[in-house]
Amino acid sequence: MRRIFFLFAATFLAGLSPLHAETLPLPDGVVAFDSPAGEALFLGAEARQDYFQLSMHFVTQDNPAFCGPASMAMVLNAIGAPRPASKMTLGLGLFDQTNVFTPATEAVKPSADILKAGMTLDEFGGMLKAHDLTVEVRHAGETSLDDFRKVAAQTLEDGDRFIVVNYLRKAIGQEAGGHISPLGAYDEDTDRFLILDVTRYKYPPVWVGAAALYDAMNTPDSDNGGKTRGYVVVGR
Amino acid sequence: MRRIFFLFAATFLAGLSPLHAETLPLPDGVVAFDSPAGEALFLGAEARQDYFQLSMHFVTQDNPAFCGPASMAMVLNAIGAPRPASKMTLGLGLFDQTNVFTPATEAVKPSADILKAGMTLDEFGGMLKAHDLTVEVRHAGETSLDDFRKVAAQTLEDGDRFIVVNYLRKAIGQEAGGHISPLGAYDEDTDRFLILDVTRYKYPPVWVGAAALYDAMNTPDSDNGGKTRGYVVVGR
Ligand SMILES: [Ca+2]
Ligand SMILES: [Ca+2]
Ligand SMILES: [Ca+2]
Ligand SMILES: [Ca+2]
Repeated sequence: MRRIFFLFAATFLAGLSPLHAETLPLPDGVVAFDSPAGEALFLGAEARQDYFQLSMHFVTQDNPAFCGPASMAMVLNAIGAPRPASKMTLGLGLFDQTNVFTPATEAVKPSADILKAGMTLDEFGGMLKAHDLTVEVRHAGETSLDDFRKVAAQTLEDGDRFIVVNYLRKAIGQEAGGHISPLGAYDEDTDRFLILDVTRYKYPPVWVGAAALYDAMNTPDSDNGGKTRGYVVVGR
Repeated sequence: MRRIFFLFAATFLAGLSPLHAETLPLPDGVVAFDSPAGEALFLGAEARQDYFQLSMHFVTQDNPAFCGPASMAMVLNAIGAPRPASKMTLGLGLFDQTNVFTPATEAVKPSADILKAGMTLDEFGGMLKAHDLTVEVRHAGETSLDDFRKVAAQTLEDGDRFIVVNYLRKAIGQEAGGHISPLGAYDEDTDRFLILDVTRYKYPPVWVGAAALYDAMNTPDSDNGGKTRGYVVVGR
């Protein structure tokens, strides 16, 4: 019933917004990347260096539990980590949502378990560490909005680190549970971050207020012993 | 031997360019999207409306012959064509490089044959028509640089059409054969187009001069009876 309602709502509201004809309606206070306002925010963003590297590797999560592996693939490609060989032209490879799993990441959490239940913030950080990256995991409850904003804005503008957020969708008015996606940019004038949402069948990338995003990270994760969600800063 | 040489060259030159550590070196005259010059071109581009919709659906071709299906999936998602149902959350779907194939597209060219040999410009246009879109196919030899530039710049700035180019990579100094990818933007000051190259394991998106791109389209395609390559403008 719930499913049918949302499908109906999506179909109905889609008529009002041809560009997102097949995604869910966005809640108030969240700005779509591909709207006039969203585009203007990007063009006037004070920190957007990471967008260019990440957007080149933007992917859709392969299944409803794989927001973490999708975000991992984007960051590993963007950061220039050595890529797995493949059968592509000249043997050139890319990280994807299959080859991000290695014996070292399986020891953190088996991919079969991630397929069933996704991953927590700590598991996500552990998976990136298993790829020999430098990882800082921050639970929202152990930091503050001001610290998050400062770290995130700096990371988005530097050349060698990326930031990925773990937040509760319903806290920003979206459907519905815990989610993981990289940040792409920060607009200081409106105090908004751009989330490169890997659930591309569901929502476009969105600009969300820093406080709203922080509050959505500062929510307890029952899969993680009630610890709050938060963010990961990753470098080489 | 050729394969080994290019692998070696890629590995060697990669050391000079950490951001593209795992892709091939770019030829002179082509500007990477994620370079300071490439980013500045985007921020100052005179036509870039299509970039926002297409970048949200940017994908990597699934195999060496699937530049066409990858470009189709991007355009079908960006243009808001009704999406196939899926097992994703709420049943929401997206076009991908499997479900772009329908009985109507199989009648144009079977996917099994595309897997072996890719597709020509006319076949690419036919596949999009089979999705009930409005399609104009233009062979470069039947038009001119000035006409291409005008049509492409207009299309990149309007809200309801997209343009996809079919060109010979080696004509712009890349490896190597015929290729298909959407355009994302046009910078009038430098007369360059941004190609959202779907071979993301091989090259970043690049800014290419309009004349160089036109010349690379104005090349005979032996798979298409010697007709020249060119471009497709697609609308709903
Ligand atoms: Ca600003
Ligand atoms: Ca950064
Ligand atoms: Ca310009
Ligand atoms: Ca357009």
